[in-house]
Amino acid sequence: MKLKPLGNRIVVEIITEEETTKSGIILPDTVDKEKKAEGKVLAIGDGEKITKLGLKAGDKVLFGKYSGEEVKVEEVEYKILSDEEVLAVIEQ
Amino acid sequence: MKLKPLGNRIVVEIITEEETTKSGIILPDTVDKEKKAEGKVLAIGDGEKITKLGLKAGDKVLFGKYSGEEVKVEEVEYKILSDEEVLAVIEQ
Amino acid sequence: MKLKPLGNRIVVEIITEEETTKSGIILPDTVDKEKKAEGKVLAIGDGEKITKLGLKAGDKVLFGKYSGEEVKVEEVEYKILSDEEVLAVIEQ
Amino acid sequence: MKLKPLGNRIVVEIITEEETTKSGIILPDTVDKEKKAEGKVLAIGDGEKITKLGLKAGDKVLFGKYSGEEVKVEEVEYKILSDEEVLAVIEQ
Amino acid sequence: MKLKPLGNRIVVEIITEEETTKSGIILPDTVDKEKKAEGKVLAIGDGEKITKLGLKAGDKVLFGKYSGEEVKVEEVEYKILSDEEVLAVIEQ
Amino acid sequence: MKLKPLGNRIVVEIITEEETTKSGIILPDTVDKEKKAEGKVLAIGDGEKITKLGLKAGDKVLFGKYSGEEVKVEEVEYKILSDEEVLAVIEQ
Amino acid sequence: MKLKPLGNRIVVEIITEEETTKSGIILPDTVDKEKKAEGKVLAIGDGEKITKLGLKAGDKVLFGKYSGEEVKVEEVEYKILSDEEVLAVIEQ
Repeated sequence: MKLKPLGNRIVVEIITEEETTKSGIILPDTVDKEKKAEGKVLAIGDGEKITKLGLKAGDKVLFGKYSGEEVKVEEVEYKILSDEEVLAVIEQ
Repeated sequence: MKLKPLGNRIVVEIITEEETTKSGIILPDTVDKEKKAEGKVLAIGDGEKITKLGLKAGDKVLFGKYSGEEVKVEEVEYKILSDEEVLAVIEQ
Repeated sequence: MKLKPLGNRIVVEIITEEETTKSGIILPDTVDKEKKAEGKVLAIGDGEKITKLGLKAGDKVLFGKYSGEEVKVEEVEYKILSDEEVLAVIEQ
Repeated sequence: MKLKPLGNRIVVEIITEEETTKSGIILPDTVDKEKKAEGKVLAIGDGEKITKLGLKAGDKVLFGKYSGEEVKVEEVEYKILSDEEVLAVIEQ
Repeated sequence: MKLKPLGNRIVVEIITEEETTKSGIILPDTVDKEKKAEGKVLAIGDGEKITKLGLKAGDKVLFGKYSGEEVKVEEVEYKILSDEEVLAVIEQ
Repeated sequence: MKLKPLGNRIVVEIITEEETTKSGIILPDTVDKEKKAEGKVLAIGDGEKITKLGLKAGDKVLFGKYSGEEVKVEEVEYKILSDEEVLAVIEQ
Repeated sequence: MKLKPLGNRIVVEIITEEETTKSGIILPDTVDKEKKAEGKVLAIGDGEKITKLGLKAGDKVLFGKYSGEEVKVEEVEYKILSDEEVLAVIEQ
């Protein structure tokens, strides 16, 4: 299965690190985790505006905590963002 | 009977899987089910913007949970979405 | 008397079926009935955008439950919708 | 005294019928009466958009209950509507 | 001192008649009086849109009760309205 | 230190007169004072729209009580207004 | 690691001075501090509108207290502002 974003949109996989406390207990999913504003680009639409931003699959991007639409396909959650909502690329 | 969407709109049939609990009890319709953000394209308007997205009948699409207008014709529920509201196509 | 919609608008007669319970009792008018999202086109404005949609008198159309302006002329209620508010045509 | 509407506006005199109960008692002015959505065109601005609608003084028009600005000049109340707010003409 | 409105704006002096009761008592300033929707044009900006309306100093104009910005210079109150907010001219 | 406004903005110094009561007591800063709608232009951006208004440093301008952004640099408060927010010039 | 802002955006490092009381006690982080409206430009997008403003890395800029998106990367907080949100440059 593959998600093909339409127009000036990208599909982003939300980056979450396992939250382990010092004593080794894995914390359960919290609402806060869902609101992470960092993700990895999975796919890019073919709209003119999103193309212009020069993003590619694998790029790590930042976006507003409440930006984008959260979708869930086959139990995996994604964010679909429009070109206006991608704030910056994190380069390493 | 056929629904012909106007302008830059599509008609979508909402995909719902029967929700059966492990013990085999079929759960009644819930509000939550109505809010599913996945559908199958039934018909496409002839507006320029929707045409450009290259959707065709049968495509599985994702949209925002609160997007579109819910309509009910002859006891069947549909969603009518505008081009801006279709987020991505699910390809298999 | 005739209603002539201005610009990109149409006048719609709301379709209501008599609501009769199984025991034959006719139910009184309810708020819910007024909110029906289905109507029959009575007249079409001469604006460019509404003309482009190719609607004609007699067409059955769908619109959002809260779309349009409700007007009452000589005790009959109508809805006046703008081109943007007509979602789809019901073809038979 | 004359009201000359500016740009794409019209001045409308609100049509109110005397509300008499069956027993002949004239009901006092109510808020509801002020909200009547029917009026007679008194004057038309010279803006391009309002001119295009082809309205003339004396036309009976429909508008949304909460549309327009209510003004009171020399104890008479008028509504000033912009071109977008005139929904339909009532022809007899 | 003179107020020169910028762009598509006019400066208006609010017209208030002394409110005297039948018994001759002058009523104090009320909030209601401040909300009068009638004024005399004092000065007109040189923007293209306001120039097109053909207003001149001394014109009596109508505007929405909550339109414009109320300013107070040397203890005198004025309203500064943009071209969109002037509804009609009162001609005598 | 100098503030250089960007684009179609101006920096304004808020004009406040010392508020002394008749008995000579200087009143403390009040919220109300901060909301004064009169200021002296300190600097003008080089945007096309603000340039067109022909303002110059030293001009006394009027603006809406809640317009602009209040900024505080080295303990001094300024207002930064965009071209749309400058209502009028006070000429003497 | 480097943040590359997209389109008409800049990345800003918020300037905070250690808040020490007269008695030498360092005050803990407060919400108020996070809302500081002054920052140092770290990186500039390549959009046409932001380029036009002529900002360069190291510039001290002012912005509205509630402007921009706050992002946190590797425990450091940044603000990402769009061109419209940069009010002025502080020159020394």
